[in-house]
Amino acid sequence: MSLTVVGSIAFDAVKSPFGEREKMLGGAAVHFSLAASFFTDVRVVGPVGDDFGDDEYGVLHGRGVNTDDIEHVEGGETFFWKAHYEFDMNTAHTEDTRLGVFGEFEPKLSDASRSSDVLFLANIQPDVQRGVREQCPDVRIAGLDSMNLWIDTARDSLVQTIGGVDLLFLNDAELRMLTGEANLVKASRAVMEMGPSTVVAKQGEYGAALFTADGFFALPAYPLETVVDPTGAGDSFAGGFLGYLASRSEASDEELRRAMTYGSTLASFNVEEFGTERVSRLAREEIDERYSEFERMTALAGLPA
Amino acid sequence: MSLTVVGSIAFDAVKSPFGEREKMLGGAAVHFSLAASFFTDVRVVGPVGDDFGDDEYGVLHGRGVNTDDIEHVEGGETFFWKAHYEFDMNTAHTEDTRLGVFGEFEPKLSDASRSSDVLFLANIQPDVQRGVREQCPDVRIAGLDSMNLWIDTARDSLVQTIGGVDLLFLNDAELRMLTGEANLVKASRAVMEMGPSTVVAKQGEYGAALFTADGFFALPAYPLETVVDPTGAGDSFAGGFLGYLASRSEASDEELRRAMTYGSTLASFNVEEFGTERVSRLAREEIDERYSEFERMTALAGLPA
Repeated sequence: MSLTVVGSIAFDAVKSPFGEREKMLGGAAVHFSLAASFFTDVRVVGPVGDDFGDDEYGVLHGRGVNTDDIEHVEGGETFFWKAHYEFDMNTAHTEDTRLGVFGEFEPKLSDASRSSDVLFLANIQPDVQRGVREQCPDVRIAGLDSMNLWIDTARDSLVQTIGGVDLLFLNDAELRMLTGEANLVKASRAVMEMGPSTVVAKQGEYGAALFTADGFFALPAYPLETVVDPTGAGDSFAGGFLGYLASRSEASDEELRRAMTYGSTLASFNVEEFGTERVSRLAREEIDERYSEFERMTALAGLPA
Repeated sequence: MSLTVVGSIAFDAVKSPFGEREKMLGGAAVHFSLAASFFTDVRVVGPVGDDFGDDEYGVLHGRGVNTDDIEHVEGGETFFWKAHYEFDMNTAHTEDTRLGVFGEFEPKLSDASRSSDVLFLANIQPDVQRGVREQCPDVRIAGLDSMNLWIDTARDSLVQTIGGVDLLFLNDAELRMLTGEANLVKASRAVMEMGPSTVVAKQGEYGAALFTADGFFALPAYPLETVVDPTGAGDSFAGGFLGYLASRSEASDEELRRAMTYGSTLASFNVEEFGTERVSRLAREEIDERYSEFERMTALAGLPA
């Protein structure tokens, strides 16, 4: 089984109450790839500039991620994002965004990337996402992430793009904004009417909720005492989720719940250190150990005798 | 087993996007009593005025709640609260508060009320709560709720009062405010250092989390499509929680998780209609049915083969 992700590859500068990094590997497609790599073969598609070198490729190759479809733009600069977090670690305060080569990104997927079982469209302009989706007509599962900017400025295109995927990942506020429904149950149903069979509401420190036509599942976030850097948590979640699903033959309710748990597990490791530092040296045994902790954490005894 | 609750008995005027009521039975001790009454004998302690009559007593007696310690203040007016909810049902916008007889409330518990197994100190001025706690030295479990006002204006007294109880119920923001810790794991540990062995973080639409010395459990809120009136949800939660615990011989981790689930179940029914309307005609079978839905909703399969 294999998975292709299309999205941003970036350098991030991040400051949090626990320290700072001036220039580290980041970007949605990177966080997603590393998380998914524990479960399936991953191909990452995105543009980089001249400043992207062996160290950065090394992190991806270290986790076996296929980088053949990374597009190196000569003379260009890699997407750069600078932000800080304060007492409330749920909100990133952006200080600087330099799109660089990402501004002109027109994804052209190789045959190998087009023929993956699973496709993830990380947060990019929805026309671009739809173009990628159309290049991969045969994928078994297509997932998509987006953001408030596109809901605001390109809603029609986004709705059309959502119509072509199976799984939508958005945070609570974005789901409400997209659908105009304050109630999440109603909001997720409105999304299903657009096309997707499954909606995942990302809820930050509260975990995540899963909505399907006839099911509901919610999982708390892993209770960490210290969150060092929340950047990439949502993409690590989606990577664990879809990476696991790519490795299974069906997306049953039971498997979707396991996918939620692997997603939450990867997100929880991601935020323990800056950028990709924790996930890039993570071991599969640590993942399964934390999965089992989630099982114990959420176990509910039946009705009392 | 029996349970005593001390707190406000009120008339509420509430408007939400789903309708309004000009004067209905409310108050923390009322919502708590009705919820707890499904599990154990309940005695309610609080003051009322001349406007509190047979209809209101009828609702409490209808659920078998003992009202012998309700103090009728001649010539007085019952506590009145007026508020509305907007698109975001998580925030009550208070329009009017008339303390009435509640302003001079000095709880004097009968011997019967003092000898209950479980005591719940609903949200009142912390000196008053401590006075009640001291009248009941022999209770097996004492629980307490409070609010931002007392954290702000009577923190020292509140901390002292918290030192005398086993279980603290607060919402996330209040836990952070009380302890100065942004991280909930750290905040709950700081509360345990004040005295309580168990901390319940109420999280509104996200459910609730349970912290003990060596355990963590979290339960999502029941996914309702329509929340008509959130007033009293927290007290219904505490009522279901402590009512269930009062009916059991021990407060093991397994029983605490069941208590969380009964609390969440009662809260979910409470918000389906205005005030006490839904819970006052609730049947025990409906409660156990929803408990089983929580079980299915949170069930997580083990590691894949």
